Amino acid sequence: MSSSNNGAISAVDVIRTKRDGGVLSDAQIDWVIDAYTRGVVADEQMSALAMAIFLNGATDAEIARWTQAMIASGERLDLSGVGKPTVDKHSTGGVGDKITLPLAPLVAAFGVAVPQLSGRGLGHTGGTLDKLETIPGFRVGLSNAEFIEQMRTTGAVVCAASDTLAPADRRLYALRDVTATVESIPLIASSIMSKKIAEGTDALVLDVKVGSGAFMKELAPARELAETMVRLGAAHGVRTVALLTDMNTPLGRTAGNALEVRESVEVLAGGGPADVVELTVALAREMLLLAGVDADPAPALADGRAMDAWRAMVVAQGGDPDAALPVAPEYDDVVAEADGVVTAMDAYAVGIAAWRLGAGRARKEDKVSAGAGVEILKTVGEEVKAGEPVLRLWADGTGVFSAARDALGGAVTIGGERVERDMVLGRVAQ
Amino acid sequence: MSSSNNGAISAVDVIRTKRDGGVLSDAQIDWVIDAYTRGVVADEQMSALAMAIFLNGATDAEIARWTQAMIASGERLDLSGVGKPTVDKHSTGGVGDKITLPLAPLVAAFGVAVPQLSGRGLGHTGGTLDKLETIPGFRVGLSNAEFIEQMRTTGAVVCAASDTLAPADRRLYALRDVTATVESIPLIASSIMSKKIAEGTDALVLDVKVGSGAFMKELAPARELAETMVRLGAAHGVRTVALLTDMNTPLGRTAGNALEVRESVEVLAGGGPADVVELTVALAREMLLLAGVDADPAPALADGRAMDAWRAMVVAQGGDPDAALPVAPEYDDVVAEADGVVTAMDAYAVGIAAWRLGAGRARKEDKVSAGAGVEILKTVGEEVKAGEPVLRLWADGTGVFSAARDALGGAVTIGGERVERDMVLGRVAQ
Repeated sequence: MSSSNNGAISAVDVIRTKRDGGVLSDAQIDWVIDAYTRGVVADEQMSALAMAIFLNGATDAEIARWTQAMIASGERLDLSGVGKPTVDKHSTGGVGDKITLPLAPLVAAFGVAVPQLSGRGLGHTGGTLDKLETIPGFRVGLSNAEFIEQMRTTGAVVCAASDTLAPADRRLYALRDVTATVESIPLIASSIMSKKIAEGTDALVLDVKVGSGAFMKELAPARELAETMVRLGAAHGVRTVALLTDMNTPLGRTAGNALEVRESVEVLAGGGPADVVELTVALAREMLLLAGVDADPAPALADGRAMDAWRAMVVAQGGDPDAALPVAPEYDDVVAEADGVVTAMDAYAVGIAAWRLGAGRARKEDKVSAGAGVEILKTVGEEVKAGEPVLRLWADGTGVFSAARDALGGAVTIGGERVERDMVLGRVAQ
Repeated sequence: MSSSNNGAISAVDVIRTKRDGGVLSDAQIDWVIDAYTRGVVADEQMSALAMAIFLNGATDAEIARWTQAMIASGERLDLSGVGKPTVDKHSTGGVGDKITLPLAPLVAAFGVAVPQLSGRGLGHTGGTLDKLETIPGFRVGLSNAEFIEQMRTTGAVVCAASDTLAPADRRLYALRDVTATVESIPLIASSIMSKKIAEGTDALVLDVKVGSGAFMKELAPARELAETMVRLGAAHGVRTVALLTDMNTPLGRTAGNALEVRESVEVLAGGGPADVVELTVALAREMLLLAGVDADPAPALADGRAMDAWRAMVVAQGGDPDAALPVAPEYDDVVAEADGVVTAMDAYAVGIAAWRLGAGRARKEDKVSAGAGVEILKTVGEEVKAGEPVLRLWADGTGVFSAARDALGGAVTIGGERVERDMVLGRVAQ
């Protein structure tokens, strides 16, 4: 009877409280996160608790305390030595979402430090680190000292989070992935915010994706997630703003590691797809506002300032900004079945196809292909003729094309009328 | 994205289906139980699934298939060589529930074989094997051949279940205990019935406990559990009847291993507490009915036939029926605070007290004390005077008395009027 363990808190009691629809006390939350970090609470107990939270929810007070306990499980960085305002961006993950690559240097070009601690891809959404590692020489593993020094000098830094930040979250995040407890607002919000708050940023802009290619398929829960995270930021002294942005359609014209780097460089050179440019500028504007910089970021893409900051960042992390990027050796085109206008392109299907082509991983230990992915030749709003290529699938071998094509069945809709796409669907601030 | 694992079933898909309130397919259930048995589905995945089942329930068809899959995870014994009708009894567990000890020999005295595969105690309810092991020499570990041979000869056998019966249940049962997923009708019903069906019994009488000392505190869910199990038995060709019986008050006057053996021997000698006798006879009557034996079991307690069967069983399993039972060296009395009649004695509190005194275990690997436990000097319906002993606490050392007394705070109610206690609250048959 764990329930009568002489007054001490037990894992079974904590799970039972949440299972029965109760509210966890601060002491229960602090204990369970600490005990989980120390290995006293087992994975099978934490997964049962995560499922109970998934199904029974959590109050704002519980989410705040849970986040606090995850921050307290590791160190909280002090970025005061950077000597610049620090503003980070976090995206909840989408297909073709390479925004960090042009955004971090764009904001850094205005004298703001961007401490981007990023992750690797898992499942159908790509990982920023996987993308950057396709640049010959690029190092994503920096020490805390290197991380801070790079912010002092070049401003933008995109690297892997240290094991010492929110270690409880690191363990729980891996557990949620294998136990179908990912898409829970309390668990997503506390996971993201514990990492970002521990990282030490002054301010944070959240890009909360909504649509088929995102965790949040509908606007209402996405807004709830955004509001929850903005409140958590405020509670910890991190000025936080969230944009709700469209993820029914892939972002830009590429989903795949090196493919997305190439497209990002186009944006930094003043070109690139309109949706990527629009979102990059919208997020940069919010970041500059939070940093107290009164400037329009858009011209810096055209005039080379953002490109200079990009090159400085790549060089600082050991990469060669002039090196050729890997190109997959095989490709296969998906053609239009009718004449008309592309009216929809399902982001989830494109993400799954890119993953099957080799751009993503099913398990943490899997390797990703640098060159594989999907190139979108005709996107939403563009005219096609029957038989004309719409998507180009890139892979290291031809054996994966049929599985990728299976994922794309019905993904592209061709109709008679053009449709408008709103990139930014809402904004949440304190 | 486990959800698109090229059409194969994945643990994440199965969990997600149940998490989202769906119905698991036969293929999903067969796969997840088999994969869990083989270690392909991890404990943390099964515990998330168990919590999803706990909170979202399961249909009758799902419970039936889940039970079937757990049976199929191991061997199903063939008892046709026993040459007698076989009838087992299973209790969902209560405080002071020593009924198996007088019941198995009583029924065996009528030429019926009782294949009692039992468990050890965990938490506040005692385990039949722990009780029998207080008899010097008694062996609970029998081979399948010894198990069958003893039914042919003496008829009654109470031993540990072999590892080969429903191994999926064995693993899941241990997992549920540490993840607060015990009190779920689908999980309880499939756990009990998979073991009993795999054991090969022709018929089964279930003693479903209701009240503070039981998993099921209320009659309605206890009846639902009973009905579910009776249906499962019928579906697998095992004639099954359930009695719903009171567990607000401890059974008899003892809760503790050797203490309960002593009381059981009193019942087999024609004496013992009225409630234990009443329930033993009620269950024996059902078992004999299912075995096709038209006889009243009650006289066999008074005339020595049940005692003979008990002695034969103890001897067959290496025990000495005449040996002295262990007695704990220390005791401490809890006295009445007022004059009056004992109107309630909380079974759960008495169970926790017995557990804290050393009669039970908190973890599987813990040892239990043979002599420790609670002796009920004045039970419900009896008069007491203020200062008169009501409970006698037995332990191997005095250090545990204060924790046991804490558990008993408010457990005994002394009032003015006698109350009637109904032992059998309902009956469920096919």
